Amino acid sequence: MLEPDQIIRLEDDAVVLLDQRRLPDERVELVCASAAEVADAIRSLAVRGAPAIGVAAAYGYALAAAHGEDLDAAAAVLGAARPTAVNLAWALREVRAAPDPAARARELHGEEVDRCRRMSEHAASLIGDGSRALTHCNTGALATGGVGTALGGLREAWARGLLQHVFVDETRPLLQGARLTAWELEADGIPHTVIADSAAGALLAAGEVDCVFVGADRIAANGDTANKVGTYPLAVLAARHGVPFYVVAPSSSVDLSVADGAEIPIEQRDPAEVSTRFGAWNPAFDLTPAGLITAIVTEGGVHREPYTESLVSAVPA
Amino acid sequence: MLEPDQIIRLEDDAVVLLDQRRLPDERVELVCASAAEVADAIRSLAVRGAPAIGVAAAYGYALAAAHGEDLDAAAAVLGAARPTAVNLAWALREVRAAPDPAARARELHGEEVDRCRRMSEHAASLIGDGSRALTHCNTGALATGGVGTALGGLREAWARGLLQHVFVDETRPLLQGARLTAWELEADGIPHTVIADSAAGALLAAGEVDCVFVGADRIAANGDTANKVGTYPLAVLAARHGVPFYVVAPSSSVDLSVADGAEIPIEQRDPAEVSTRFGAWNPAFDLTPAGLITAIVTEGGVHREPYTESLVSAVPA
Repeated sequence: MLEPDQIIRLEDDAVVLLDQRRLPDERVELVCASAAEVADAIRSLAVRGAPAIGVAAAYGYALAAAHGEDLDAAAAVLGAARPTAVNLAWALREVRAAPDPAARARELHGEEVDRCRRMSEHAASLIGDGSRALTHCNTGALATGGVGTALGGLREAWARGLLQHVFVDETRPLLQGARLTAWELEADGIPHTVIADSAAGALLAAGEVDCVFVGADRIAANGDTANKVGTYPLAVLAARHGVPFYVVAPSSSVDLSVADGAEIPIEQRDPAEVSTRFGAWNPAFDLTPAGLITAIVTEGGVHREPYTESLVSAVPA
Repeated sequence: MLEPDQIIRLEDDAVVLLDQRRLPDERVELVCASAAEVADAIRSLAVRGAPAIGVAAAYGYALAAAHGEDLDAAAAVLGAARPTAVNLAWALREVRAAPDPAARARELHGEEVDRCRRMSEHAASLIGDGSRALTHCNTGALATGGVGTALGGLREAWARGLLQHVFVDETRPLLQGARLTAWELEADGIPHTVIADSAAGALLAAGEVDCVFVGADRIAANGDTANKVGTYPLAVLAARHGVPFYVVAPSSSVDLSVADGAEIPIEQRDPAEVSTRFGAWNPAFDLTPAGLITAIVTEGGVHREPYTESLVSAVPA
């Protein structure tokens, strides 16, 4: 598995990112020399995944501070890079309030790594012996800078000898599953099979899936969850087939200021990601209602309905 | 719209097909000089869509007859080209029983065109004023050699001034929606928007869809329907959101010899269609249980549950 600083790190004059747009074909680092360049990297998905973009934004702000850039402008450009993941705003608040932004950003990265480890252990406790899991998008090291959220749980279950196989939604339009998750699973030697997103129905109907694990970009106080587009259909199908559906995310993805999913802004991305020839609609995320979620796992533990009560304890005051 | 003979035609020495693998970028005809070449064209999806492959196979057999090829071998190679669509086997039976295979094949194409017209009228009767429809894969002229099945119904509704918009699932892995359906809609001037297959859940949840129309590759006696992979998740989502889900197919797609969906063979295609880098599972079709289908439309009319009764009248004895 990748080390945290192979995914994102702060150097003296730059934030250095593993460019996820080039994977799995090429392993290339992207050097961002300013907060604006980090914001560009976030917007263009050179780095993606809610926890990872929080860490990247924190490093971008720390870089701006070290360079004597206008810090209000740096925070504004980083904060506007992507609207849905709440981790980004949270990480910027943390680093702005710190006397030493670089130290706080590195600490925050370390905290994200530690949260991943704890989440993975809680998530693995939900996985029975011989399980075949289905996952969507990428929620691994690339998305978090740590062991991962949902994929971290699957890694831990594999290490414990519980996991038999991982089915990976390719995750159109940008194929984070087929490009990034399969690449991470291959590196770890975990058996995996990529499917078209629309084949998940047939797979669940065939009884080939014991559990579904996904991440989250933002979780409302009532448990409604915004995650990569395609998550909601999976949750509906899992419920129909009696397969448990788990969301794994750090407490930094829980936004208690938002009562329910309707208040979460959903990023609309360039239609050309879907079709360069015809008009397209390209929401980056969808909303899964809390009622379809078997449990939400954070570093604090396994939370179940009613989430309005169980999630409060997950989030540090 | 394309004329039937622009999609498939029998010439003296060849079956000529519009090569659907090259659309929408290039409009190129593929000349098949033997039954084996027609079978290759069917297998490789140069021509696809259940009614169209029935017509292509009939022409391929007629070509073999004209050339004095071994007709048992010709029927065998054509019949084995793809397993799921029942139209292929049906068309071959028809043309084998005919004294003049070429005349019967051309007649059969004409019947398919006529069935499309009648299906389209029945399907349009289900579409309310100002409707926004969602469709999957390609069920238009390219799939049928006529006006289409599900897409024929949408065309007729557009002609009657009832249709407002068509949302088109891109239909991974081979993008028949994004390449073929959007191309046909553009040519007809019908407003359309392509979406990633996994965005259909968000679209339905947003209340942007009034009806879902799909085709069928084979319909069992009880109404269970095999159609392009991704159809079943759409049906589940449509049911959840109270949106009617219609299957439109000619009676040549109804197979009364098959009691239910479990008996329909599902074609497994090359995993490289999904991923050339990692292992993949690539079923071409999935099964939608009859209980999720609001109505099945054939050239005979609109059939509703119980399909075991209503479909019998659809199929000529």
